[in-house]
Amino acid sequence: MAGDPVAEKAAASVLKRAVELDTARRFTESLVCYQEGLQLLMEALKANGQDENRRVELRKRAESYMSRAEFLKKHIENEKEAGKYHEKIEIGANSIGHSYQKVLGRFLDEYVTKVEIEDPYVRSTHQVYNLLRLSELLVGSCPNLKSIFLLTGRESGNQQDMLDELKQSLAKHKVVLNVEYSNTLHDREIRLDNGWIIKIGRGLDYFRPPEGKFSLGYCDYDLRPCHATTVDIFHSSKVRSVSNK
Amino acid sequence: MAGDPVAEKAAASVLKRAVELDTARRFTESLVCYQEGLQLLMEALKANGQDENRRVELRKRAESYMSRAEFLKKHIENEKEAGKYHEKIEIGANSIGHSYQKVLGRFLDEYVTKVEIEDPYVRSTHQVYNLLRLSELLVGSCPNLKSIFLLTGRESGNQQDMLDELKQSLAKHKVVLNVEYSNTLHDREIRLDNGWIIKIGRGLDYFRPPEGKFSLGYCDYDLRPCHATTVDIFHSSKVRSVSNK
Repeated sequence: MAGDPVAEKAAASVLKRAVELDTARRFTESLVCYQEGLQLLMEALKANGQDENRRVELRKRAESYMSRAEFLKKHIENEKEAGKYHEKIEIGANSIGHSYQKVLGRFLDEYVTKVEIEDPYVRSTHQVYNLLRLSELLVGSCPNLKSIFLLTGRESGNQQDMLDELKQSLAKHKVVLNVEYSNTLHDREIRLDNGWIIKIGRGLDYFRPPEGKFSLGYCDYDLRPCHATTVDIFHSSKVRSVSNK
Repeated sequence: MAGDPVAEKAAASVLKRAVELDTARRFTESLVCYQEGLQLLMEALKANGQDENRRVELRKRAESYMSRAEFLKKHIENEKEAGKYHEKIEIGANSIGHSYQKVLGRFLDEYVTKVEIEDPYVRSTHQVYNLLRLSELLVGSCPNLKSIFLLTGRESGNQQDMLDELKQSLAKHKVVLNVEYSNTLHDREIRLDNGWIIKIGRGLDYFRPPEGKFSLGYCDYDLRPCHATTVDIFHSSKVRSVSNK
């Protein structure tokens, strides 16, 4: 077998993305890419048939990325502990690849037991579906999730019925959904009790309508074009206690 | 910082699953779990604050899993080359965690350019949605995908319109969808031109109807309970050439 050029190519492309994200100071995403790229590079190194010079070169490259990844990890930890971590992501108009999994997924873990969502627009059908999708992601990614708190605007219509159905469904997964209404609310943020706070400029409703009901992107939000919005990510128990009502 | 007991616990649980899958001869899935578990174990090892005895123990454990993973990898390669790879997965009635991503995802890669689907039941609305979801997964996971071929049963009604919309949408992603109809078809299989063949007993339609339109599992198929079915996985260019029409 003659090496694994595909693993090498894949590693190169993921690591290139890691460096781009690193330069853009999108550190948590960058770290995920460094780790993934390094794993692919290890695969390439394990493959047979590489000549020794090439192996030495790959190993050197791996070492430099590894030290950058370790630096980033420490940097994130330090900023978190100092309560001043901040990362900014610009979602471009009509860009794709921004499902809730991509935006939030890397912050969801065993430490999350409570999620607080403030979003004035969880009112119409497609907006309740946004909350359903987010809930599915939370249930699938946070094994110790106990409760979700939603603060949103009140709408006449069937908002209440839809949210009640979601509430009953979450209860079957042992997660309590509490909903409160405020029509003066304008903040949009998601607070996880592992310390991460994600502020999406437009709230959950940043996807464009689907092109059609049987078109790619109708089910998979990673293929759905987005409206332009900014995501700010913070980590701080201090920020959280201030912004709590 | 006192070690990382969470990474260690997570590693233990993923590696336990790897061994279970290994015992059940579900080798491709087992390999994914070994690799993931080993990465978590490395995380645990990297964390500070572990005493030296514990580190030696963890390192020993890692080595034994690593050698099993490498054995499996070689075993799968050998069986593939000999044209006799076969793996069987039983999906239990009402069990969850069997989205197309989970069943097929690990076989999708850069080598897939053509996907052939034989399934008599891509007819009604929810069945065309199954195909849409599978198409979204293929487009997202196979960067070199050029064409999808579907052989299914013909239905009066709007089957043709739905498939036409999907066809146009795939064309925008530079993927050609060709559909042929046969009402004598009874086989259900998905053939990838990287050599993998996945036969799902019930075809794509193995999910139970959702509990409600705003219930968990409506959007995320990993949370949707399934009907009982068997998945057989083969790898062989020989099998493929025989089963081609």
